[in-house]
Amino acid sequence: MIAVLGSTGSIGTNTLDVAAHLGDRIEIVALTADSNWELLARQARRFEPIMVALTDASHLDRLETELSGTGIRVMGGEEGLIAAASLDEADVVVGAVVGAAGLPASIAALESGKTLALANKESLVMAGEYLTGLAADRGVEIIPIDSEHSAIYQCLRAGKPGEVARLILTASGGPFREFSPGELRHVTPEMALRHPTWQMGAKVTIDSATLTNKALEIIEARWLFDVPPDRIDVLVHPQSIVHSMVEFCDGSVVAQLGAPDMRGPIQYALTSPDRESAGAHRLDLTEMRNLTFEPPDTERFPGLLLGWRAAAEGGTLGAVLNAANEVAVNMFLDRQINFTAITSIARSTVDAHSPIHPAGLEEVMAADRWAREAARAAVSGD
Amino acid sequence: MIAVLGSTGSIGTNTLDVAAHLGDRIEIVALTADSNWELLARQARRFEPIMVALTDASHLDRLETELSGTGIRVMGGEEGLIAAASLDEADVVVGAVVGAAGLPASIAALESGKTLALANKESLVMAGEYLTGLAADRGVEIIPIDSEHSAIYQCLRAGKPGEVARLILTASGGPFREFSPGELRHVTPEMALRHPTWQMGAKVTIDSATLTNKALEIIEARWLFDVPPDRIDVLVHPQSIVHSMVEFCDGSVVAQLGAPDMRGPIQYALTSPDRESAGAHRLDLTEMRNLTFEPPDTERFPGLLLGWRAAAEGGTLGAVLNAANEVAVNMFLDRQINFTAITSIARSTVDAHSPIHPAGLEEVMAADRWAREAARAAVSGD
Repeated sequence: MIAVLGSTGSIGTNTLDVAAHLGDRIEIVALTADSNWELLARQARRFEPIMVALTDASHLDRLETELSGTGIRVMGGEEGLIAAASLDEADVVVGAVVGAAGLPASIAALESGKTLALANKESLVMAGEYLTGLAADRGVEIIPIDSEHSAIYQCLRAGKPGEVARLILTASGGPFREFSPGELRHVTPEMALRHPTWQMGAKVTIDSATLTNKALEIIEARWLFDVPPDRIDVLVHPQSIVHSMVEFCDGSVVAQLGAPDMRGPIQYALTSPDRESAGAHRLDLTEMRNLTFEPPDTERFPGLLLGWRAAAEGGTLGAVLNAANEVAVNMFLDRQINFTAITSIARSTVDAHSPIHPAGLEEVMAADRWAREAARAAVSGD
Repeated sequence: MIAVLGSTGSIGTNTLDVAAHLGDRIEIVALTADSNWELLARQARRFEPIMVALTDASHLDRLETELSGTGIRVMGGEEGLIAAASLDEADVVVGAVVGAAGLPASIAALESGKTLALANKESLVMAGEYLTGLAADRGVEIIPIDSEHSAIYQCLRAGKPGEVARLILTASGGPFREFSPGELRHVTPEMALRHPTWQMGAKVTIDSATLTNKALEIIEARWLFDVPPDRIDVLVHPQSIVHSMVEFCDGSVVAQLGAPDMRGPIQYALTSPDRESAGAHRLDLTEMRNLTFEPPDTERFPGLLLGWRAAAEGGTLGAVLNAANEVAVNMFLDRQINFTAITSIARSTVDAHSPIHPAGLEEVMAADRWAREAARAAVSGD
């Protein structure tokens, strides 16, 4: 019995594909989307959930018309999203909303005692300490859907929590891994949106190109696995076959490998600790001829350093980094700033922030708002 | 409380190194060697076991003199080896005897209800079905020390037994991986004894060069993990960093990586399921720049095919392959046959054998003796 928040996005559609493959084992009880009411309606007709919600309520009437007579409850706005996240019938909530908007829903799911299968990394980046505390408090688990964190989550089974020496996050390095600093300045949105191996949404794709995606993943891993940032490493691995690794205290390194297909981690999150037979996502070992690994270049991709910094300082710094980056990525996509400015803006916003330890969602969201203002001001002030 | 059978060999000395590193956690209660009485005496003085045994008893008096006054019991012959394997005080027996001589000791250890940490792969190759049945019967475990099988044993923790789709054994490919058939015929013992990454004994090193080592490991894996041979793959991986992998039914592949240092698998066998901090054997990830994988070439290295065949047919075929290969390797080291003839002799002996399902050790040893005769006859008849 699962609720899929953000069902029309990249992770959401893959989640429904996995659910279809798993058949009787999975029942979809809620679906939500931001604005794509047409796809949401089609998904609702196919999976027959108890309810659907459309966060951007401007086309709510069309969705209602489309689903009239189906008996599916239709809700709108943030209220609808929260209702789906805390729906009584759901045991597992898949958090696949994109960006900061996913945090209140993650909190609502955990507060309602649901297992949270989390793709929305911003939730942990912004409020990791709060969320993991909440999960512990309610005795529920946060299961990662990010391929890197799913890999670590799987590798951790080969040892005990106190035996972890190091987490090694792999990074594709993005499409501009070999670009010079001069070339990086002239990267266009079109160039950045062509990711080498994964098919993802625009925001994640740009974050992957700046390595800020990996910075956010450092913060995410820090909270999810309770490992201090100085024991989280990043290795650039352009083939994206090794999804991440864990080094144990005895020197043994356990890695998880798989096809570059999000359905693998999604399925594991839904069936864990069991494994069910794969649909399409099997690794072809004959394609695994040559795997390369190299340390990341933090001079050309300084966004990565912000990850260790925010993971080490904690407090509201993660929320500020996330918000400033989100604003900067949008400005880049709108051609208001160049590619390297994305990271500069994120860093200058982080520099300007005096982090506090937030008492709850309100203070996190206040830091988020402050950072968005500051990031916009940084550009208009240029 | 462990007994180390074969303590003066490559695995044996590494086991004592690990024991020294683990300190109080490990107590050595028995040590045995084939003929190296001087090293055995030094080891006994250092680790103060209850007993030592020297299988080749011709220098037993010198060992006795050397250890007089220490209170350490000294035994000789096969009888001494079996006494060490079944010593009351031992909980764990490390089976590191080289070759077919290790089998009776492995049986004695399991019959006495000991956990068997097994480096002597011949035990499982010759009598895998019998040994695993015995272990199940006594409720004790066989823990592999071979780096490949230790890797698989560790990777299996990431899933459940029924979820295993495939075992993938990695192979260094040996020093002649890129040799032409003509070049292979002119390989000398000196050339073969230079293994690219592992420091091992002569027998294992030659087996590694012919890939017969991997053939034996297929048989070993088949029994140890109860996986049919058509679900055991071999991948040549010259860097020997990925020690082996498990593919689960959901398409997720879990791999174990480590430094090319036998102390890793040995330590894991002794501390499992716990992990203790490493001594020297940590993987330097900065050296892990480029990992390559390729299918094995069974035309140039046909010895590998004998592994799948013996694992599939079962019965006495494993014992015959092992014995014929052991004879052939010795003839090669004695310059009586050329390098490619090692595999030809093993194969012709296997071809000539009519396998039976052995009722016990006697029939296994009879097949072993038959194969040694047949292999020798194959050469003298040339």
